[in-house]
Amino acid sequence: MVLLETGKHWQGSVLGSVNPDIASERQTASFSVEKLTARLDGSVEQTRMRRAVAEAIECDPEFSRENQYFQSQNERYEAAVRKGVHLQKKMREMGWAEDGPEYKYIYRALSGDVAFLLHRIFMRSISVLGSEKQVTKWIPLASQYRLIGSYAQTELGHGTYLQGLETTAVFDSSTQEFILNTPKISAMKWWPGDSITAGDIGPKMNFEHTDNGYLMLQNVRVPRENMLNKFCEVRPDGTYLRRGSQQINYFTMTTVRISLISDEVVTPLMKACTIAIRYSVVRRQSKLQPGEQEAKILDYQTQQEKLLPQLATAYAFHFINDYLQELFNRAYRDIQRKNFDTLPELHASSSGFKALVTQHCTSGVEICLRACGGHGYSLLSGLPSLYTKILASCIYEGENTILLLQTARFLIKSFMAASSGQPVPPSVTYLAAVKPRKCPAKNKLDFLSPDIYTEAYEHTAVRLISSTAAKLQDLIQSGVKKHDAWNQCTVQLAQAAKAHCHYITVKNFAETVERLETKAGIQKIMKHLCDLFALHGIFSNAGVFLHDGYLSGAQMDMVTASYLDLLPVIRKDAVPLVDAFDFSDKSLNSALGSYDGQVYQRFYEWAQKSPTNTQMNPAYEKYLKPLLHNTLSKL
Amino acid sequence: MVLLETGKHWQGSVLGSVNPDIASERQTASFSVEKLTARLDGSVEQTRMRRAVAEAIECDPEFSRENQYFQSQNERYEAAVRKGVHLQKKMREMGWAEDGPEYKYIYRALSGDVAFLLHRIFMRSISVLGSEKQVTKWIPLASQYRLIGSYAQTELGHGTYLQGLETTAVFDSSTQEFILNTPKISAMKWWPGDSITAGDIGPKMNFEHTDNGYLMLQNVRVPRENMLNKFCEVRPDGTYLRRGSQQINYFTMTTVRISLISDEVVTPLMKACTIAIRYSVVRRQSKLQPGEQEAKILDYQTQQEKLLPQLATAYAFHFINDYLQELFNRAYRDIQRKNFDTLPELHASSSGFKALVTQHCTSGVEICLRACGGHGYSLLSGLPSLYTKILASCIYEGENTILLLQTARFLIKSFMAASSGQPVPPSVTYLAAVKPRKCPAKNKLDFLSPDIYTEAYEHTAVRLISSTAAKLQDLIQSGVKKHDAWNQCTVQLAQAAKAHCHYITVKNFAETVERLETKAGIQKIMKHLCDLFALHGIFSNAGVFLHDGYLSGAQMDMVTASYLDLLPVIRKDAVPLVDAFDFSDKSLNSALGSYDGQVYQRFYEWAQKSPTNTQMNPAYEKYLKPLLHNTLSKL
Repeated sequence: MVLLETGKHWQGSVLGSVNPDIASERQTASFSVEKLTARLDGSVEQTRMRRAVAEAIECDPEFSRENQYFQSQNERYEAAVRKGVHLQKKMREMGWAEDGPEYKYIYRALSGDVAFLLHRIFMRSISVLGSEKQVTKWIPLASQYRLIGSYAQTELGHGTYLQGLETTAVFDSSTQEFILNTPKISAMKWWPGDSITAGDIGPKMNFEHTDNGYLMLQNVRVPRENMLNKFCEVRPDGTYLRRGSQQINYFTMTTVRISLISDEVVTPLMKACTIAIRYSVVRRQSKLQPGEQEAKILDYQTQQEKLLPQLATAYAFHFINDYLQELFNRAYRDIQRKNFDTLPELHASSSGFKALVTQHCTSGVEICLRACGGHGYSLLSGLPSLYTKILASCIYEGENTILLLQTARFLIKSFMAASSGQPVPPSVTYLAAVKPRKCPAKNKLDFLSPDIYTEAYEHTAVRLISSTAAKLQDLIQSGVKKHDAWNQCTVQLAQAAKAHCHYITVKNFAETVERLETKAGIQKIMKHLCDLFALHGIFSNAGVFLHDGYLSGAQMDMVTASYLDLLPVIRKDAVPLVDAFDFSDKSLNSALGSYDGQVYQRFYEWAQKSPTNTQMNPAYEKYLKPLLHNTLSKL
Repeated sequence: MVLLETGKHWQGSVLGSVNPDIASERQTASFSVEKLTARLDGSVEQTRMRRAVAEAIECDPEFSRENQYFQSQNERYEAAVRKGVHLQKKMREMGWAEDGPEYKYIYRALSGDVAFLLHRIFMRSISVLGSEKQVTKWIPLASQYRLIGSYAQTELGHGTYLQGLETTAVFDSSTQEFILNTPKISAMKWWPGDSITAGDIGPKMNFEHTDNGYLMLQNVRVPRENMLNKFCEVRPDGTYLRRGSQQINYFTMTTVRISLISDEVVTPLMKACTIAIRYSVVRRQSKLQPGEQEAKILDYQTQQEKLLPQLATAYAFHFINDYLQELFNRAYRDIQRKNFDTLPELHASSSGFKALVTQHCTSGVEICLRACGGHGYSLLSGLPSLYTKILASCIYEGENTILLLQTARFLIKSFMAASSGQPVPPSVTYLAAVKPRKCPAKNKLDFLSPDIYTEAYEHTAVRLISSTAAKLQDLIQSGVKKHDAWNQCTVQLAQAAKAHCHYITVKNFAETVERLETKAGIQKIMKHLCDLFALHGIFSNAGVFLHDGYLSGAQMDMVTASYLDLLPVIRKDAVPLVDAFDFSDKSLNSALGSYDGQVYQRFYEWAQKSPTNTQMNPAYEKYLKPLLHNTLSKL
């Protein structure tokens, strides 16, 4: 420690000032950051409300995440419960209601590090699937935390295949009760979070703030009237009665899938981009020209090519989230009127996009982490916790491959219907227009036309869906059993489903750009990002575009050239583009990503707070000292 | 806990018996597992020695990893130091020498969870770069742990760019000492592991067993004769003298890069494959045919397509490691004779393969983790710790993109030399034979010919290298400065370097298969894996093979068909193929991956050992109880 004391001559903290290397990035913004932020939030008023909520949460020391990276599993859980309880008090104080407009901003401000989230899914299930009587009885109790609920679906032996669940519920008409049992070990409920009765399933990669539990049931009796019975019912004599579509039973899952995309998936990618891009304009390494100052790493093409497509992806998925919300609202209104027609499209879309978005965002966060080198690997960068948490989103609420195959089933069905002239839902009408074509682009600038690239995506999606449908039919006609044939096509079916969702994402991005205001430079920079997102997708999946000659090798070279040309253009606005996400330093909780760009100083100061620096590890006295004094033989 | 007590009727432990679902997989092996294991180890004798070492380590309770997943950062570090000290004792007891043949098996048996590893890099630097006098003085002290060394290269502000390091060493001829200083915060040594003097840099994603430190130097004086001076020297008057190539200074890094491939990168992928594949024949989910039993998840094409290419990759890289070891041994012998001619090829190969292997293996471990769904996300599966550790390998010992660009520089140079008829090192002679061609394959079976696919890889590598060389020249000829031109080509240069290493890997795999004994079914199954590795690479990077028409779309369909056909063939031997890696249960330390396949029982039993189940979290008394009793207002 002596060295630290004497080395103070350059250690005056610079954390009050902004690093000139990041300040200069903001002086040349081609657009109004504040206006883009308002556009992302929906309106100026929404931005104001979000900031007010964030301010109230972040100023409250009870919600501090300052020590998060030094906490053990138990400490994180305890803090999450403390925050969960404190939040109820805070909400009463602030006059925020559970169903109020502030709620979504509270979650964002807390960065999800709070207990009782599953309690909300429990409540949502009651609201959607319960009768009016049930809603009136349970929701007030749950809102006041007089009871805490869970959502115990997954079992040790079954996750995705709900028909295989082994927990039994036998109706006893003599007492008008269901008798619940766990008949074998694989039927044990596993993973339900916030379950406080049975046991903890052990440590996970993240989610220490959630006490994922196991639950065993031994003749547990539940009164008949506790079964949620808006859409189905068991009568006193034990008869099962269904009202409406069977798909409504999956509606809670659909709802959850859509609602998690913004908070759990796109937001972490936005944060990771903010951290990695800010760091990359402050970190200087090696020289672009001999004799010059070392270059900012964001000036290297390879660093741009890692980070800027992730930035474009974050915007693309922010807009696809708007698209899904709209689809959901429409379906929800229909369901309230007992019209279930929109459910298949909603189910297929929520499944496919959940898979696509979680996969791309997870890989995007990992790219951001790795693009920060060794420092990104430090928990203090904030990136490892973003990664280990977002990774779970690929698994929970439906494993991604299974979800893609559900989307594929819908696509094959729609393709068959469209081919025979039957009407299909709006998002798949394009399947009716199958025609072999060539891309008309003549030079690299043509690939900056949304029509050109959107059509390329459309063509590829149709080709993959139709060729897989053909393979499926061929197999069946050659005598392979239907289920085997399906299994033999699943790799290609999943690929087709991804191509469909990718196409819709590009199309939706391009249409969103069309509708943006042309003032304040926003439409222009969003157009660049849309182009980058689309061309990056073609560059990275070149095979599917070249396969049938829709694009020629020469055209692919044009795509590559246009794609690489876009990087330095967007690079100029990279910092303003992440500033527009408007995350506070507290919300990022990153030594690398703070607004002021004082990376090394902050990293060093945070590291000093590590318990390993403030207290001596017993290993020194116990093992190292004797070893170094050559007393090994006495051990 | 009452439920757990009363639910015991199905809770008799089955951990003594083998799950029939995994037992049946072993009855149909097409090859001798024991013989393949010996082949992987090098000989029957090596296998015997490895097992004896593993046995001695695993039976010693001091080395137990039983509680690893429940340990805090400090606990893991303390355990690693304890193990490091105990290991010295153990080695004396067993008669194992530091430079003995057992050493590499010790590390494998400990799964790397031990302190003082950097001490060995410190020793290796002395051995390679030190004079005979220095070696004689320091190595015995270091071997006996009378002193513990580190390797402090990386600074807070500089990692990859060694010329930019800011620590100063000024020679004071009056005292014959170097005076070391840390002139600014970014010059602080950061990350050196096992450094026990200055401070800890804070928590990381993994590597809790290593106390990565920071180190500040304030007029630290080091005697002149302590500078390692086999290849360079500072004379008493301060004159700097170099002996041999400058590249020799990078030799420690080259050595480390090659040595880490097997232990730190390929072994974790082998473990991940073992865990995921064993789990996938025990886990049953959904039905392939209605009315049948639920299917093993490894019977689904999508699961095969996730895991089996990773298995093939593990074998491919095991063999590339042999290739690199041989290259290294040759170079080392040359250097001892002061011949530095092989260094450029060694440096380019170690860089490129370090990047390729770490990238593929990291992504492979992640795929294995995700393929196990929610259970893979539990620390008890063993997969998260494999992932968070292997991820670091993409960053340390040279950031992968930088390494690929070093390989690319060598390739461009070699391409230019080869084009003008000059001699080039053996691994790049293929660059001389540039000819536009088409793939001659006529049907899908043709793609099971190693000549066909190896040539496709070769062609692609040449095309990417030559087209990037052409772009580089065009830019320079059009007036772009050399360094800018290089920067504008780096995305494509990195791609070209990957293509080169991928080609060498396929070629080396095919040649290895050629040399294998034809008995005991080993050559046949290895041929299948080689085919799968090669075709998976073409399938996944279709664009580069289709781009110039070397493969047509119709041929790509044949590749896809052959590739998908291979999956069910290899699937039959999947469990024997991971058994052949010969990891003990203790070494896997996974509730999902044990030899007996008793997944659910073990998972449940391990979860019960979690501290969260054996002690009540204070959060209940402090927050939950008052909340549930509606005493919130009194808080």
